[in-house]
Amino acid sequence: MSLRGAKPRGNLGLNDLGEFGLINLLTKGFKPNKEVLVGVGDDCAVLKYRRNEYLLWTTDLLFSGVHFTEDASPYSIGWKALAISISDIAAMAGIPKYGLVFVGLPPHTTVSYSKEIYRGISELAGKYRVKIVGGDTNAFEKLVIGTTVLGVVEKKYLTLRSGAQTGDLICVSGPLGKGKKTHLSFLPKVQQARRIKRLFSATAMIDISDGLLSDFTRIAEKSRVGGKIFLSQIPCVSGIRPEKALTSGEEFELLFTVKPEYGKAVYEAGFFVVGKVTSRSFGVKAFNNTSGNLYKPSRSGYNHFPEK
Amino acid sequence: MSLRGAKPRGNLGLNDLGEFGLINLLTKGFKPNKEVLVGVGDDCAVLKYRRNEYLLWTTDLLFSGVHFTEDASPYSIGWKALAISISDIAAMAGIPKYGLVFVGLPPHTTVSYSKEIYRGISELAGKYRVKIVGGDTNAFEKLVIGTTVLGVVEKKYLTLRSGAQTGDLICVSGPLGKGKKTHLSFLPKVQQARRIKRLFSATAMIDISDGLLSDFTRIAEKSRVGGKIFLSQIPCVSGIRPEKALTSGEEFELLFTVKPEYGKAVYEAGFFVVGKVTSRSFGVKAFNNTSGNLYKPSRSGYNHFPEK
Repeated sequence: MSLRGAKPRGNLGLNDLGEFGLINLLTKGFKPNKEVLVGVGDDCAVLKYRRNEYLLWTTDLLFSGVHFTEDASPYSIGWKALAISISDIAAMAGIPKYGLVFVGLPPHTTVSYSKEIYRGISELAGKYRVKIVGGDTNAFEKLVIGTTVLGVVEKKYLTLRSGAQTGDLICVSGPLGKGKKTHLSFLPKVQQARRIKRLFSATAMIDISDGLLSDFTRIAEKSRVGGKIFLSQIPCVSGIRPEKALTSGEEFELLFTVKPEYGKAVYEAGFFVVGKVTSRSFGVKAFNNTSGNLYKPSRSGYNHFPEK
Repeated sequence: MSLRGAKPRGNLGLNDLGEFGLINLLTKGFKPNKEVLVGVGDDCAVLKYRRNEYLLWTTDLLFSGVHFTEDASPYSIGWKALAISISDIAAMAGIPKYGLVFVGLPPHTTVSYSKEIYRGISELAGKYRVKIVGGDTNAFEKLVIGTTVLGVVEKKYLTLRSGAQTGDLICVSGPLGKGKKTHLSFLPKVQQARRIKRLFSATAMIDISDGLLSDFTRIAEKSRVGGKIFLSQIPCVSGIRPEKALTSGEEFELLFTVKPEYGKAVYEAGFFVVGKVTSRSFGVKAFNNTSGNLYKPSRSGYNHFPEK
């Protein structure tokens, strides 16, 4: 789910609307209770389920020209539509189980194009053992595709955005800066998230969809903390500078926090420490290195609403 | 959910695509099991839940210019988006519980327009005690809005499309022919469906979205039966002829079947018997009256894919 309530205001193209206006209105006044443990404001809604498990529920809707270009392969469009929702389940350390798919197909869509969308969804669903149990299809002038996924998580595994504490380390699951190249073919990090929870008892987690800085700001707001991110510590893919990696969107790596004693274990397991959780009053800031100067990014992350 | 696999072939504008192509491909080879009792091919997916209850899950996606005209009020657009999914839960005699909303809003959308969509969703959700627990919002050139709803149903209440048997009576919950006037403001028949199940142990049920004839054909295909529908017995709203009521879509009345001994009780409770379930080899046919001639409709129901 894209729940943009935590997004910095300056990043928004549509005043008070769009990314967060409607959903925030709809969920305003929502109070967690025994049936709905988490509503708006995290990667998934968390619902009461079985004695030791919660139900996780998310939805994502992709548009031609916004989330993929018109010349993207139909296989990769189908893949991405499901991958984004599975990634939301991963971000809570859950296991995806079932999916529904909804599409609007332009009237000129060919059978082979439709079959390629199907193949993209189907191969990813197979890899993650997600059962597609239904959906809704209509004709529409532009290609629109979305999914809703249900997953489960053991109560002791549930990892929210709200659990980070001052002194925790800020970590990422892999190198950043590949977003543009991989956003149509990424593998959601379900097993990695489970491992992160198991090995380091991660205190908070999110998947990086809008950029390290933007998405850590979401954790910070939900956890009522601040944070320092060190450019020199950000793992980058070849040819990408950390300044770019700081705000690169659609990475779908995991961003998580752990107690400081796990720092060494995080590196040993192949993950990366990129910063430190501070008190709330400090805010969220990036520095060139651990002893260096404040770095001011020109933009804080990927924005689905292009500035006018 | 719109699961068009049961739709008569001749009714389709896009060859082998659209309304049923993609979802059918995705769910091909699906076999019901202990975890997923019903997948594609009914109003909702039916999932294992608690000892005495199943989880019901549906999704619907509406497009500007397809499911509502551009001059429809934003309040009614929000209302309809949620009402359609609640109606899917009703059609299985379930109780809707939670919803997620996903929207694409054109860049020129005003705050007051967005608030009216919200008000439409929110008032309907309040009426049915459905908690909106999250969603996804993006900018898009056309207004697109959808919902996914989770509900519960006691195992003994679950009513599928597949339970009709030869000799059963075909019934509807109210007069038909009002679709065009009410499709943006209808009240999903949750309590009526529960009453129908309780009073008559309905053997099959569906909500009328594409027309009495089309939707009964879905019950017939899933139940492997046929049926006679009598024009003279169809309850019609004022000014509408039964020929029109037979194929009028977006009615959202309940279409259900009951054992013949409940015939009198159905009338006494304010519902209507419109026909009789036959063996499969008979097919699905409409007659002018119980002793009359075969009636051939020029079209069999509402079609989201206009003929080219």
